[in-house]
Amino acid sequence: MKSKKAPPAAGQAVVLLSGGLDSSTTLYYARSKGYKCYCLIFDYGQRHSREIRSAKKIAAGAKCPYKVLKIKFPWKGSALLDRKIKIRSCGLGTKGIPATYVPARNIIFLSFAISYAETLAAKKIFIGANAVDYSGYPDCRPEFLAAFRKVIQTGTKTGPGINVEAPLMRKSKKEIAFLAQRLKVPLQLTWSCYKGGSRPCGLCDSCVLRAKGFREAGIKDPLV
Amino acid sequence: MKSKKAPPAAGQAVVLLSGGLDSSTTLYYARSKGYKCYCLIFDYGQRHSREIRSAKKIAAGAKCPYKVLKIKFPWKGSALLDRKIKIRSCGLGTKGIPATYVPARNIIFLSFAISYAETLAAKKIFIGANAVDYSGYPDCRPEFLAAFRKVIQTGTKTGPGINVEAPLMRKSKKEIAFLAQRLKVPLQLTWSCYKGGSRPCGLCDSCVLRAKGFREAGIKDPLV
Repeated sequence: MKSKKAPPAAGQAVVLLSGGLDSSTTLYYARSKGYKCYCLIFDYGQRHSREIRSAKKIAAGAKCPYKVLKIKFPWKGSALLDRKIKIRSCGLGTKGIPATYVPARNIIFLSFAISYAETLAAKKIFIGANAVDYSGYPDCRPEFLAAFRKVIQTGTKTGPGINVEAPLMRKSKKEIAFLAQRLKVPLQLTWSCYKGGSRPCGLCDSCVLRAKGFREAGIKDPLV
Repeated sequence: MKSKKAPPAAGQAVVLLSGGLDSSTTLYYARSKGYKCYCLIFDYGQRHSREIRSAKKIAAGAKCPYKVLKIKFPWKGSALLDRKIKIRSCGLGTKGIPATYVPARNIIFLSFAISYAETLAAKKIFIGANAVDYSGYPDCRPEFLAAFRKVIQTGTKTGPGINVEAPLMRKSKKEIAFLAQRLKVPLQLTWSCYKGGSRPCGLCDSCVLRAKGFREAGIKDPLV
């Protein structure tokens, strides 16, 4: 007698994967729900290729196929695309949208995810968007995702047949760290820091949020 | 005394330009309304580069700056991206969405247009979408654009400060041909045919729709 049942076959899903804690946990979550996951990784001119390498390793480790889509933005407008703009050392809690905001990034990423999903006939798209412990990006909020679902319903061949799920939307970083641990996400392979380097800088918003989550969850971050 | 007033300065606009009749007319329309237009052209692996060359010539002829954004789709799923899929000879009037449908194409194009608009601080995006004499693509319909506006409102830094306008949405091809003539669109530079070649094939949906418009408007198409 088997002690553990295999998860039900839930169909195919496209998972947006950046290699950070949130998207990696989202991938493992989708897998745990029985989805056959196809990862979509973007090489969009971000400051360092470290996160792309992480994403590839995470996908490979989860035994999920992945595609890397290269985008060469012919404009700047974000600290993540333009080395002349400074990345702030923790500006969390300050008002406004930070310089690391990439105009329309999640809208673009989700658009490609729809295209990939329609090609695969996948019924689900997973995104690691989170609106609790986050940097204040507008394209991470539930009202944005609700609007985007309507775009899929009205603007695609599949229509309401594709849904977007953001399982981490309402979770704190502490809860995400717990979930990652429970799902056995290979945390040592993830990368959250906005900067490259051999170790996380510990100062950017992304590092500070990650550290807060691990600290509150009482879990040791293998990267630190 | 001047007989003609200069159009009012309406601000900056991003115009999606494919080089076809509709998007070229849209560009000239936006210009006639006083917008300083920035054209966005996509090199997305379409079957031929003829339409990209047309788009560049149209933008240059209208004295508008343009950016070409290259997308290398790592999947197929459309007759326009995959040479193994046949392009139908006029299937207009038949039910369903044709093989030339590129999954999520306008969603992707509009997403990049938002990104460009936010970088320029442009308040308007123009798209030549049309839901009267069209091929049946879901991402050309008014309900799709309405949903997309909501995505901009909720998912960007600028929020409701950017609007999408589709001035040709409710026009027949005949009316578009008339408008193009009135606005002095250089019709000889446009390209609508799905196939490359030195002359339009005359058989694909796009050629058939264009021919219908010109015929009904009693205007000679300089390409034929």
